[in-house]
Amino acid sequence: MFNSIGNILRLTSFGESHGKAIGGIIDGIPSEIKLDFDAIQNQLDRRKPGQSAIVTQRKESDTVQFLSGIFEEKTTGHSIGFIIPNEDQKSKDYEHNTTSYRPSHADFVYDKKFGIRDHRGGGRSSARETANWVVAGSLAKHIIPEIKVYSFVSQVGNISIEKNISELDFSAIDSNDVRCPDKVTAEKMIEYIKKIKKEGDTVGGIITCVVKNVPLGLGEPIFHKLHSELGKAMLSINACHGFEYGSGFEGIKMKGTEHNDLFNADGSTKSNHSGGIQGGISNGMDIVFRVAFKPVATIIQNQKTIDSKGNLTEIMGKGRHDPCVVPRAVPIVDALTYFVLADMFLLDKARKK
Amino acid sequence: MFNSIGNILRLTSFGESHGKAIGGIIDGIPSEIKLDFDAIQNQLDRRKPGQSAIVTQRKESDTVQFLSGIFEEKTTGHSIGFIIPNEDQKSKDYEHNTTSYRPSHADFVYDKKFGIRDHRGGGRSSARETANWVVAGSLAKHIIPEIKVYSFVSQVGNISIEKNISELDFSAIDSNDVRCPDKVTAEKMIEYIKKIKKEGDTVGGIITCVVKNVPLGLGEPIFHKLHSELGKAMLSINACHGFEYGSGFEGIKMKGTEHNDLFNADGSTKSNHSGGIQGGISNGMDIVFRVAFKPVATIIQNQKTIDSKGNLTEIMGKGRHDPCVVPRAVPIVDALTYFVLADMFLLDKARKK
Amino acid sequence: MFNSIGNILRLTSFGESHGKAIGGIIDGIPSEIKLDFDAIQNQLDRRKPGQSAIVTQRKESDTVQFLSGIFEEKTTGHSIGFIIPNEDQKSKDYEHNTTSYRPSHADFVYDKKFGIRDHRGGGRSSARETANWVVAGSLAKHIIPEIKVYSFVSQVGNISIEKNISELDFSAIDSNDVRCPDKVTAEKMIEYIKKIKKEGDTVGGIITCVVKNVPLGLGEPIFHKLHSELGKAMLSINACHGFEYGSGFEGIKMKGTEHNDLFNADGSTKSNHSGGIQGGISNGMDIVFRVAFKPVATIIQNQKTIDSKGNLTEIMGKGRHDPCVVPRAVPIVDALTYFVLADMFLLDKARKK
Amino acid sequence: MFNSIGNILRLTSFGESHGKAIGGIIDGIPSEIKLDFDAIQNQLDRRKPGQSAIVTQRKESDTVQFLSGIFEEKTTGHSIGFIIPNEDQKSKDYEHNTTSYRPSHADFVYDKKFGIRDHRGGGRSSARETANWVVAGSLAKHIIPEIKVYSFVSQVGNISIEKNISELDFSAIDSNDVRCPDKVTAEKMIEYIKKIKKEGDTVGGIITCVVKNVPLGLGEPIFHKLHSELGKAMLSINACHGFEYGSGFEGIKMKGTEHNDLFNADGSTKSNHSGGIQGGISNGMDIVFRVAFKPVATIIQNQKTIDSKGNLTEIMGKGRHDPCVVPRAVPIVDALTYFVLADMFLLDKARKK
Repeated sequence: MFNSIGNILRLTSFGESHGKAIGGIIDGIPSEIKLDFDAIQNQLDRRKPGQSAIVTQRKESDTVQFLSGIFEEKTTGHSIGFIIPNEDQKSKDYEHNTTSYRPSHADFVYDKKFGIRDHRGGGRSSARETANWVVAGSLAKHIIPEIKVYSFVSQVGNISIEKNISELDFSAIDSNDVRCPDKVTAEKMIEYIKKIKKEGDTVGGIITCVVKNVPLGLGEPIFHKLHSELGKAMLSINACHGFEYGSGFEGIKMKGTEHNDLFNADGSTKSNHSGGIQGGISNGMDIVFRVAFKPVATIIQNQKTIDSKGNLTEIMGKGRHDPCVVPRAVPIVDALTYFVLADMFLLDKARKK
Repeated sequence: MFNSIGNILRLTSFGESHGKAIGGIIDGIPSEIKLDFDAIQNQLDRRKPGQSAIVTQRKESDTVQFLSGIFEEKTTGHSIGFIIPNEDQKSKDYEHNTTSYRPSHADFVYDKKFGIRDHRGGGRSSARETANWVVAGSLAKHIIPEIKVYSFVSQVGNISIEKNISELDFSAIDSNDVRCPDKVTAEKMIEYIKKIKKEGDTVGGIITCVVKNVPLGLGEPIFHKLHSELGKAMLSINACHGFEYGSGFEGIKMKGTEHNDLFNADGSTKSNHSGGIQGGISNGMDIVFRVAFKPVATIIQNQKTIDSKGNLTEIMGKGRHDPCVVPRAVPIVDALTYFVLADMFLLDKARKK
Repeated sequence: MFNSIGNILRLTSFGESHGKAIGGIIDGIPSEIKLDFDAIQNQLDRRKPGQSAIVTQRKESDTVQFLSGIFEEKTTGHSIGFIIPNEDQKSKDYEHNTTSYRPSHADFVYDKKFGIRDHRGGGRSSARETANWVVAGSLAKHIIPEIKVYSFVSQVGNISIEKNISELDFSAIDSNDVRCPDKVTAEKMIEYIKKIKKEGDTVGGIITCVVKNVPLGLGEPIFHKLHSELGKAMLSINACHGFEYGSGFEGIKMKGTEHNDLFNADGSTKSNHSGGIQGGISNGMDIVFRVAFKPVATIIQNQKTIDSKGNLTEIMGKGRHDPCVVPRAVPIVDALTYFVLADMFLLDKARKK
Repeated sequence: MFNSIGNILRLTSFGESHGKAIGGIIDGIPSEIKLDFDAIQNQLDRRKPGQSAIVTQRKESDTVQFLSGIFEEKTTGHSIGFIIPNEDQKSKDYEHNTTSYRPSHADFVYDKKFGIRDHRGGGRSSARETANWVVAGSLAKHIIPEIKVYSFVSQVGNISIEKNISELDFSAIDSNDVRCPDKVTAEKMIEYIKKIKKEGDTVGGIITCVVKNVPLGLGEPIFHKLHSELGKAMLSINACHGFEYGSGFEGIKMKGTEHNDLFNADGSTKSNHSGGIQGGISNGMDIVFRVAFKPVATIIQNQKTIDSKGNLTEIMGKGRHDPCVVPRAVPIVDALTYFVLADMFLLDKARKK
């Protein structure tokens, strides 16, 4: 159960950044779904390293190989096994890490919890795992083709989009390296990330996600509310420190009379402070949520730290790392959102006679 | 699976606010644990309605009855069934709701999703369910007696505690009706809630939770990270719109050089931007997270709405509702935190030879 | 997870034979199903003690009380909590058991595993738990009203029905106390059980189950085959020592040319050695399986045994026990069969787009 | 969930007999366990086709490749991904099967249930999947090194071992091709299987399993009884039609006074009709169970059948099939037994404080 997500649609995954391959098994996908393999690979390409000047320069083709569950390009209804070979495993970059712990990294807790440490790039704690999620989410998207997920970078450090969501052109998300649909803001963000990178430093950011054409009724009361399932998934992404939907943290300042979303005659609402979710169930309005990412822990500067024996020492990151995770996290947020929605779609069907 | 939470320690619950009783089954609790029934009832009393002037005046004694799994005051290792009878079911208060939907409430989506609507107080969507969680969390606390959870109200509307967490005296949390440990801020909050209540309006708030004495090693990599399990649980609470831990949404503005928590020789860290969790695993520092609650949807004012046939109509809340949920949500946050930590504690044991 | 069964439709249960009540929560039942409460109680009456001269004389009305998930006699789609109060708890009958272990009973292993022993009637190991299963199965039956389950006693000791299944009149199952549809055999069985009872002894038996009108397609490949789900459920019944379906243990002597079920043009088969299940999936033919029950361990004779300190001692059952479990196990097999089939029915729906 | 088995230790698998590879993910295995890769491969060799004259002549090296979760030959505590490439995929052997259904095979129900059919050797219904289980079981064995599982062929057709279990020498199990530890019986079985094979026919058999050195306390009351977990696993094996433990189906003829296992002073029992399991929990005696396998459906003779349009036609198996599955099923029963016991071992730990 430790490496699985999903109720009906379930991804179980494996892999370390410096092993032979990562991969997973997607279970519960209905049969007779025609797959668009280019679309799946395209999402992997959006996540892969080395794609632009503002991301890590590790080189991975990230080519997914499907091993089962597909016959003549259609799903068979059986489990889909897949692997993504690791190609550019510069384990040497990590030889200096064998005994020292990188501050704010998983090194220390993994070593203490498991009594063993795969020091090559963080082992299982590496964000390379998220490539598996992109495969799963891209497959899940085929189950709910009418739903459209638009994730984008809305803030980097102090630089944020000033416009309302309704003013944004989602077709422009991939028009720049930072994946911010507002051109002017995007340029500022890119410039800032380049500056930060040059300093050997890192910075955090926010991804906003808007989901359109969501049918009413996804999500289950009590412990599988749509927003708690989405929140759990997003909080699984490396470096994620926060999740809010609809009015979020800002909404607490409002009064009920301001916050309540009044109905139109067709059941749609005049405002959307609920972020498309009421009582844990989609109400047919756009789902809107925001995900906060802290600055990446690995910096290319000397930091004081300790080794496994508690001796004070120094460490300096040598691997190829992202100065800011949010541009590459956009397809991950997309993927997990599709995955959760497809799972909730199937779960809703399971509870109908 | 729909009404269950937890991996090893699992609560499955049932109940509507206007049925005979709510209740649940707690499974996976170890045997031979001596239970403190007064402590359990005390937590229920902290949550129960009618306890002060700033909460709903519904009268419920909220007395839990344990039906199994306990022998001579000790757990037997078998499932613990319990019920909490509903006493003050003023179903008449809800007769006006039979066809109209309360804005921003679960009425509309429940009716559409399930094709049936228990209009008496929201049925299963009622926050009365959270009394079950308080029972489960109070029992869970017995599994990990050394861990101490301190939840408190840190913000109501625009009024927030200005002090640092380290300056707060957690023993003062229950010294006032709003459960804010800072006396001066508490008074402002109470005054504001009373004003809001008089207007028939509601307001949101934030609960901050600090957990002390957490052993290193709780939480599982990938999909059961400690913060994603906590986040999922908190996002299950009625009216919750956001969750953040450690540096949270504010932390995105920081650089890695500022954000990284440098080690002391003993493995503790000089700062705690990680909120006690690194790579999804507790690192032994205090766990710190914040939970945002929107203003309650039920207001005692006329609101325009629609009925089940799509006709425009008006509705005015008549039930006895909370003007602000956060004071009564404090024991709920406490309970879910204990529950998640106890579950993660047992899960960690399950993966050891 | 310890006290739950089912994938989509899930029963979680609690209760000891000598506590205040037993009960459970049924989760995953679809909404808008009109319930026949008399039919549910009728199944409980078929299982309850004291119903005839050949079963235990403990007196329990076994009246189920539903606490949630039902509104105006229809399911709401939410979890259904229920309790069955214990009325006739002659705990005194068990006072002699406080330190001695009953041979072939769960006493010894429970004490060693849990470190605590509820000596009143076996605590959680009591077959009283199966009343919960009858409630769950009777509810599950409402999900699949077209399917008909016919369980009956086919063997007691050495006395077995000689006729073929096709020669039996299932409407006669409840026409006698032993629940054997063949009148002549039934009389022999009853006579034998009475004799055994007089001796203070017990005897085993077999229940055969035939399921009609099963739609093709229930059961999932690999680890949720229909027969493995049924087998797991049946093996959960107290005293069950074996499960076989279709040709079962006898079928191993056959050759493939004899055993293969040849098709008719409509997809039905000429023979049914497969017992209605091929590759783990129902093929539309009658499902046929058999369940073996050992003789009850509690006998009303002196037996040598040991106490908790390992001292040799003697024990004699004083409680009111069944000389043969199979007559009362018939409604339990019925109930679990309905439960598993309804669960597989919903699981099949969950995997369809 | 569809392709997973296990509670704490969980195998999720994938693969068709004629795809690129089969494989799986083993989750929940503790860290720091030194693996014996030769022992794992040795078990695969015991199961692999082509190993003797009485099994299918398909040629597969069945070499497992581990992709993750292992560092310097030790488990890391993370999910272990593995694949077994398919080498000898004579898909052409199956071209004649594209429209006709093999009697008593999964073809028909798979086609109807999934609406799609991978006709190359049965697709997901192929027993090739069981190679994955052998990997999982061989790994699981490392968690409980003190427990010893001895499965062997005790019956083929009408030929069965006449000796008591205590008279058998388990070290002789692999001394002959049929894996029967009694030399004289083994020779008769082999001769009979050769005769059946020559006829193009098949025959069933029984595997008996004896487990030694089982600690007291494995298995969980109610729905995870040790025998129901074992039964469920065994009934998952292709062609399995029955499971019994201890006295099994024969035991029903006994009286309680004969069947009860009386204690020795040390808690062991004088007889073992309970098969080492009481109340669903291991009592420290040898676990004993028997598994029935029907004759393989694929015969090398003409059989009347239907095609997907319901037309009557004929079919003759051309693939390379086993005349009797039990010799190759022995390592599968071994593997699943280790897997279930290791899972129950970890589950027992999870419920202890």
